[in-house]
Parts: sequence; structure tokens; C-alpha cells
Amino acid sequence: MRAVVMHAPGDVRVDDVDIPVIIDPTDAIIRVTAACICGSDLWPYRGYEHLDGPTRMGHEYLGVIEQIGADVRDHAVGDFVVGSFVASDNTCEICAAGFQSRCIHQVMMGSIGTQAEYARIPLADGTLVRIPGEPTPEQVRSLLAASDVLGTGWFAAVAADAGPGKTVAVVGDGAVGLLAILAAKQLGAESVIAMSRHPERQALARRFCATDVVEERGDAGVARIKELTGGYGAHSTVEAVGTQESMLQAIRATRPGGHVGFVGVSHGVELDGLDLFFATVRLLGGPAPVRRFLPELVELIMTGRIDPGVVFDLTLPIEDAAEGYRAMDERRATKVMLTL
Amino acid sequence: MRAVVMHAPGDVRVDDVDIPVIIDPTDAIIRVTAACICGSDLWPYRGYEHLDGPTRMGHEYLGVIEQIGADVRDHAVGDFVVGSFVASDNTCEICAAGFQSRCIHQVMMGSIGTQAEYARIPLADGTLVRIPGEPTPEQVRSLLAASDVLGTGWFAAVAADAGPGKTVAVVGDGAVGLLAILAAKQLGAESVIAMSRHPERQALARRFCATDVVEERGDAGVARIKELTGGYGAHSTVEAVGTQESMLQAIRATRPGGHVGFVGVSHGVELDGLDLFFATVRLLGGPAPVRRFLPELVELIMTGRIDPGVVFDLTLPIEDAAEGYRAMDERRATKVMLTL
Repeated sequence: MRAVVMHAPGDVRVDDVDIPVIIDPTDAIIRVTAACICGSDLWPYRGYEHLDGPTRMGHEYLGVIEQIGADVRDHAVGDFVVGSFVASDNTCEICAAGFQSRCIHQVMMGSIGTQAEYARIPLADGTLVRIPGEPTPEQVRSLLAASDVLGTGWFAAVAADAGPGKTVAVVGDGAVGLLAILAAKQLGAESVIAMSRHPERQALARRFCATDVVEERGDAGVARIKELTGGYGAHSTVEAVGTQESMLQAIRATRPGGHVGFVGVSHGVELDGLDLFFATVRLLGGPAPVRRFLPELVELIMTGRIDPGVVFDLTLPIEDAAEGYRAMDERRATKVMLTL
Repeated sequence: MRAVVMHAPGDVRVDDVDIPVIIDPTDAIIRVTAACICGSDLWPYRGYEHLDGPTRMGHEYLGVIEQIGADVRDHAVGDFVVGSFVASDNTCEICAAGFQSRCIHQVMMGSIGTQAEYARIPLADGTLVRIPGEPTPEQVRSLLAASDVLGTGWFAAVAADAGPGKTVAVVGDGAVGLLAILAAKQLGAESVIAMSRHPERQALARRFCATDVVEERGDAGVARIKELTGGYGAHSTVEAVGTQESMLQAIRATRPGGHVGFVGVSHGVELDGLDLFFATVRLLGGPAPVRRFLPELVELIMTGRIDPGVVFDLTLPIEDAAEGYRAMDERRATKVMLTL
């Protein structure tokens, strides 16, 4: 089958590889109908993460079940399904508490690679959510977003305690940051401040109901957020980049007692303990437990109440994956869908 | 009047200084009836914090109001009162959200110095809580504890989300850590694990209803906590030391999705962003908003339901403050009360 393989930073190819097979009785094999390129795929692409030889890529997916293991109970061949970028049993105490991305049996889907024609899904009962009915092409894009970027943005907004009466600031205007704006609004936030300098992304932020756009960064960015919040700082801040600068921006933009939800995969971030002590903000971040939110997100998408799929501004057949990576690397595209 | 002054690391004296006067109309002057030495006073004593010349010490206090400013409405001369180590207006949005220690008008009482016969209390209406009735000598000790160590331990337990069904681990066996055990139990925690190697403090931990004592540290300490929690880690962990080792101990002992409440004043702590990302714990710490809890704590103490004052294992007249500092520095005393 065809699968995307990164051979070296900047060197993405579509190779011919073996079709996956059931390994554990809790596995399912899906025929992938849509996959995509994630902002986090750019870290190795740009050489910031070490590649241990040619590496299969992709952790977001939508597909049809082709085969199930002997212990799969809740899904059947032919089901149209979506899952998170972390496979989870959805039954351990960590999953039960809503942190499926840190399930004691977790399998990172990135280690399997879903930018491919077929994918093995471990812990299929815990991982997969069935999609009811027949999605439109727009809904397909949105469901694919739910697999990672929407689920991650949603978690960030929840971790930041976005809700009624709250002013939410969002640091980062990639797909996750943009969808955190959508999530904050859905969760009832009173106002949402997008921090962005990119005109097209600002437009998308406004479409997702951002009430303000702040172009300033650093001290000036913090000052602007304080100005917009009666001098106090945001109640809730989403960090969706993963750099030292963005993390400090998020913490400093937040009022004491406020919440910071950070979902940018940290690269070179070091937090000074005393600064954090005196910031007195509530911090929660990590790989998003997308599975917690998937049933609700699927419902919101299939009933037409949210349209997160608009973050996909480039759709390419999997053969053109290399061009998709280039477009995201050069910020010509926010988010690339790969069709199969 | 007599007041404790630190002239240099290890050099604590009782000097004769001016009696404070009302500066702002929201001030009150109290006659201090009891003060104490805080674990955080040991940082400059040990030379870990810079002293800018001779420095007045103390931020915990119990006393009788001697004089009030023109704008003080809720308190009167003669009131017996307790306050937090941070003066706060108790009306700004930060205070209203329960973070009085970061009030926009906050004054750190340590900058005034309450190890003295009299003290000026800024923002008296917001800061002070009246003590009803006539406390016993034991209740006096407990009320003094409420001013900082109990309030801080209580906040740590609340920040760590201690409550029914939860296993709470406490890193640090100083007065704050010990009182976090008491707080966790009061908040309904199912079990409380004290991390301590000190026999007398272990005994106090047990008295405050710790269900387990773990003597191991580092990897072995984390392994033991996991062993006691079905392999998952604690739901809630209190960090009450402030070192790199204790902070990492606390984070690593906590299950994903669990809470860490950190109240040890950070000294040299650096948190790696990626480690924090994958820990996926909820982090909240800082100077405790003791004022939030004071009315409840005063009530619990005056009705005899808690006895936090037992952490005071040495009581000295203020003249002997130097010996009090030495005793705490050498860990001969957990907590020293100074009488006036």
C-alpha cells in the first residue's frame, strides 16, 4: 500500500509498504479515507526532532473498518469511524478521569503512521468512535479535524477553563489555536482574544468568533491583553505553539488565579519556578485527551453546529504529500488534508 | 518598641525601633500578642536570599487593634484579630476570585515585619478577620498557625484538589506540609501519604491522620507512591518545600490528570516544558490566598474541630528570637512561636 515516509528533514516520500495486519485481538484494521498533516509533523521536517531512519508519518485519520480482532466488541466491519491520535483502552482510571491521552495502555498513533491507505488501530473499542449517517465532504473535513486539531484546541479551551463570563486569550494562530477560539466560543466564553499577525488567520479567527485580535507580542502583547481586561489579564489563556516565548506570553497574559491550557508540544521550554510561583496561575497541558471529547464533537459536526473543517485550506491526494509538507512549512497552508 | 531585625545571615537581633503609625486611612495599628518564625524566614537566614541591609522580620500575627484609619469600617479599636501574610483589599476581581495573595493592592506583611510589639496593617478591612470570644492558649497557637502555615497548607490541599475518594501525597514535613495533611483530611481525602524521614514529624503526620508514611525519595519515593495507588500515582500532591528535587518528586508522584498544589517558595527550580507536557498534571501554586480560608479556619479552631497549633513545638519570648531562628535552622524545632 502507499504510505507517507519521512526519510530525512525536508525529505517526504510516498513509499510502497506492507498492509498492516491484526497483532492483538483488540486491534482493528481500517481503510483510511482521509488523513492529514499536523503542525507537529513539522518538528522533524524542520530538523528540530531527531528521525531514527525513515519514519512513517501521520496520526490523524478517518476510515472504514476492514477487519477486527477477536476481542473487539463495540465495532464491526464496515463501520465508518474516527479516533484520536492516541489509542487508549478508555477503561483504566486515567481514561475514566478523562485523560485518555495518558491511558496506561496508550499507543501513540504517530508510531503507527496513518498517512497511508490502511492503518492498524490498537484498542479499537476504546479508541474509535462511530460516525452516524453519511457525512458531507465538509463534514468529512471537520471530522478529520476532530481527530486531533479540533480535539486539541477543545482540550486547551477546557484546560483554560473557558466558559461564561470569561475572557479567553489564544496564543498561536495555527489550526489548534484557531480551533481553540471556536471551542472557547462554544463553551460560552464572553470574549476571545486571538493573538495573530497573519491576515488570513486573523480572518479565520474572526469567523470563529474571536472578539479581538492582538498583533503585539512580548511585553507589548501582555500590556494589550491587560488593557482589554481591566488591567487584570485574561481569565483563561490557551497556548498553542510550544516555544519559550509563547509559553511565557500565555502565562504572563493570565491574571492570578486564571487558567493556562497549553497544548503546543514544548520545544526548549524551561519554566522558572519562582516566576511560576508568583504568576499564581493554574497550568494544565499535555497531549490532548481527544477521546474524551470525540462523541460530543462528532455530534456537533454531524448536526451542523460547528464547521472546524474550514481550517483545511489545502487538499491533496496522498501522492502529493511532499507538497503538502512544503506548503505547511512555508506557511502557505494552515492545514493540509490528504485524500486516498 | 522591640522588633526582630536580621542584620545578616545567621545574625538575628531584637532592636529598639519606632512604633508604627497610620499612613493610609485604610490602615490599622495592632498590638501584636503573638508572632512566629516561618520556614521562609530561613531562606535569608541561611544566606539563600539577599538581605538589603538590616531587615525587619515576620509576617504572621495575632493582635488587638489599637488604632484605625479614617476609612476603616469593619473593625474597631479593641477587636482581637488575625490576618494573612499578605494584606489585600478583598474587593478587587482577583480577591473576589479567591486569590487575595495576589490582590492588585497587595502588601506583603514581610515588608512591614510583624515580629514586633506593634504592626501597621494596610487595608485593614480587607485583611483582618475578627476572632469571636476568648481563645484558650491552645487556640491562640492555632489561630497564629492560621495566619500562614495552616492557611498555606490548606490552600495547597485545595490547589491539589484533595477531597473524597482522593489519595493525597504530601512532599515536605515542615509545618506547612504537616498542616496540608490536616487540611486534606478535613477536606475528606480518603488517604493521605506523608513523605518524611523525621520520626517526630512522622508522629505529627499520623496525629493529623496521615494513613501512610513514605521515607523513600527520588525514584524510590515515586515508585512507593505508585505502589500505594494501584500503579497510577496520587490523585493530589502537595509540594511544601520549594526545591528542584521536591518539585519533581511532587509532579512525578502524581497521576496524569491529577493535581499538584505547590506552596514551597521556589528556590532554583527549573521545570522542563516537555516533561511538564507529558506529566499532564494540573499545577497550581504560589503565595497562598490565606484570607480566602481565614473565616472558615477561625471557625474550625474556635469550635475545637482542628488543633493545628500543635505544630508549634517551641515558644519563646520575643527577646529570644535569635534562639528561635537557630532552633528552626537546626531542625530542633518545627515551628517557633514568639510571645510578647
